[in-house]
Amino acid sequence: MSADFTRGPVADLFSSYLVAVSLSAAAELGILEALKEQGSYSFETAEADGLDRGVVRQLLVTLSWAEVVEVADDKAVTGPLFESAYAARGYFYWMVRGCGELFSVVPEVARTEDRTGDFYTRDMRAVAVGSRLIGDTEVEPHFVELLAELDYEVIADLGCGSGQRLMGAAGRRPGVRGVGVDIAPAAVELARASVAEAGMADRVSIVTGDVRNLEPRPEFADVDLITCVFLGHDFWPKATCVAGLRKLRTAFPNARRLLLCDVVRSETLPGPDTRIFTLGFELVHALMGVYLPTREEWHQAFRESGWVCADERHFAAPPRGILFDLRPEG
Amino acid sequence: MSADFTRGPVADLFSSYLVAVSLSAAAELGILEALKEQGSYSFETAEADGLDRGVVRQLLVTLSWAEVVEVADDKAVTGPLFESAYAARGYFYWMVRGCGELFSVVPEVARTEDRTGDFYTRDMRAVAVGSRLIGDTEVEPHFVELLAELDYEVIADLGCGSGQRLMGAAGRRPGVRGVGVDIAPAAVELARASVAEAGMADRVSIVTGDVRNLEPRPEFADVDLITCVFLGHDFWPKATCVAGLRKLRTAFPNARRLLLCDVVRSETLPGPDTRIFTLGFELVHALMGVYLPTREEWHQAFRESGWVCADERHFAAPPRGILFDLRPEG
Repeated sequence: MSADFTRGPVADLFSSYLVAVSLSAAAELGILEALKEQGSYSFETAEADGLDRGVVRQLLVTLSWAEVVEVADDKAVTGPLFESAYAARGYFYWMVRGCGELFSVVPEVARTEDRTGDFYTRDMRAVAVGSRLIGDTEVEPHFVELLAELDYEVIADLGCGSGQRLMGAAGRRPGVRGVGVDIAPAAVELARASVAEAGMADRVSIVTGDVRNLEPRPEFADVDLITCVFLGHDFWPKATCVAGLRKLRTAFPNARRLLLCDVVRSETLPGPDTRIFTLGFELVHALMGVYLPTREEWHQAFRESGWVCADERHFAAPPRGILFDLRPEG
Repeated sequence: MSADFTRGPVADLFSSYLVAVSLSAAAELGILEALKEQGSYSFETAEADGLDRGVVRQLLVTLSWAEVVEVADDKAVTGPLFESAYAARGYFYWMVRGCGELFSVVPEVARTEDRTGDFYTRDMRAVAVGSRLIGDTEVEPHFVELLAELDYEVIADLGCGSGQRLMGAAGRRPGVRGVGVDIAPAAVELARASVAEAGMADRVSIVTGDVRNLEPRPEFADVDLITCVFLGHDFWPKATCVAGLRKLRTAFPNARRLLLCDVVRSETLPGPDTRIFTLGFELVHALMGVYLPTREEWHQAFRESGWVCADERHFAAPPRGILFDLRPEG
C-alpha cells in the first residue's frame, strides 16, 4: 500500500498543530519575550528558569519547522517568521491554552444529548490573557484615540473584566467618572481591587450585572458614553439581543453613544484568504452553542432596538472585528 | 500598526490546528467513514445520529478550508485532499484525542519542579485506537506476510495490548501456541476475554508483566519467536534497555528470533521534508520525559545485550518506523 499521505499537505497540517501548541507554550513560558528582546534563547537560560531542557528544546525544534526560530546546539535564534508569529501570539494562546482542552474532547461535546449543564471547560484566565493581547494590536489603541476626541463625563464599560480599559478612559481625563459592569464575581473583585490600588475609587465604581438584562441604577444615571468590547455576541440570539439593547436605553437614560466592538461571523465559506482567528472563533462558539451574528444581523438588531449606527470601523486585527458607533434613536 | 500577520503562513498555522482538531473529531464521530463510503455526508444524517448540527457543520467548514471536503447548503462532499486525510486519520486521532489535553497544558508540564508523580494525562483508549490505525497501513500487513514465511511453534508478543496481533499469528497457523505479555491490567483482561471468545484459550495465554524486566516462567519456556511492536522505546534509557534485552534471552531460552518494531528518533532538525507524526511523537515523549533512541543507539544496545541484528526494514508509515530482525548471539 502506498503511503503518499505521510508527506505533503496533510503531513503539514499535522506538524502545524504542533507549531500552534509550541507557540502558545513559548508565549506563556517567556520564551517568545526573550527571543523578541535578545534575538536568541539558550537552553541554559531555560534550565536556570526552572524549565525542563528537553521540553524546551523540543518546543523550539517544532517552531523551527515553521521557521519561527532556528535551532543550534545550545540555543534558538529568531527565524524569518518570528515577527509575524510574535505579533499573533495572543491568538495561539487563546486557542491552545484557553480552548485546547475543549478542542481535545470535541466528539463528546458534539453529541446532542450531552450538551446540557456545564458540558465544556475553558481556561478563562488564558482566554482573557489571549483576548487582551488580541485587542492590544488595533482595538485598544483605537479606543484610546477615539475617546480622546469625544466629549463625555461619565463612561460605562459593559463586560469590564479587569477594569483596565475603564480606568484608562477615566484616568486620561481629569474629572471623568466611570462605572464598570461584569457578570463574573472574580472580575468584579479584581477590577475593584485595581481601582482602589490606583486611587480611583472616588470616581470609578464596579458593579455586578448581566449586561443583557440591565435595570436603571444610580451609578448609571449620568452615564453619557457606553463601551462594550468583545462581548456583544453574548447578547444573542436575536430576540434576546434586541431586548437587551433596548434595556440599555432605559438603564442608561443619558447615554448619547454606545461604542460596541465585536467579531462578526463570516458570511462565506473559508478559503485561501481566510485570516487568523476566524475558524477558531467560529468553531469554539459552535462547540459552546453560542450564536454568532453576522454584520448584517447586528444592523437588523440595532434597527429593531432603537439604536442608530452612525459609523462603523473594520479592524484587521482581530479579523472581522467591527466597531459599531451607535446613537440612541430620536 | 500593521496587521500583516493576520494572513499568510502564520494565519495558516492557526487554521491548520483547527483542521487537525476537526479531522480527529470527524474520525471518531463516523463522519470520515460515511464520507469514505458514500462520498457525501448530510447534516440531516448528523442530526439523526444524535449529533449537534451546528457543531458538525462547523467541523466540516473547517475541513473545507484544507480542501478535505467541500461544503454545500445541507451536506459535505469529499474534496481533493480527502483520501490523504482519511489515510492519515489515525495520526490525527492519536495526536488530538489521545494527547490533546497534554498539549493544552504544556507550560505546566515544562516546569522542572512539577515533573514528578502523575504529572500528565493522556487518553490511552484514543492513543491505542490511533496507534492501531497507524500500524494497519504497513506494519501489521508486513507482520502477517513475514510470519507466514517463518517457522515457529510458540510465539510471544511483548506489550500485546488487546491481543489481536497474537491471536492472528496463532490463529493463522494450526498447532501454534502463543503467550501475550502486558503491564496494563485492563489490557490483560481485555486480551484474555478476546482469547476466550475466539475459543483459543487452550493455546493462547496472557500474562501480566513488565517486558523490561522479565523472568523465566513456564509459559515462556518453549517460545521460539518474540514480537514487540511500538513499545521498544519504553526499554530506554540505554542501561535499562541493555539489561532488559539481556533478560529476554534468559526469560525466553529457546527464542531464535526477536522482531522488534519501533519508531526511532530523528537525527536531524525538521524541515520541508518532515513527514507526518515525527514532530508529535517527539514532542509528546519530551513532555512525558521518555527517552527516544535513534536507530544507531538501538544498534549499540543490541550489540551490548547479545542480540545480532540480521536485517532491518524501514516503513514509510509510520515514518521512521523500523523493524529490527534480531537473533540471539552465539
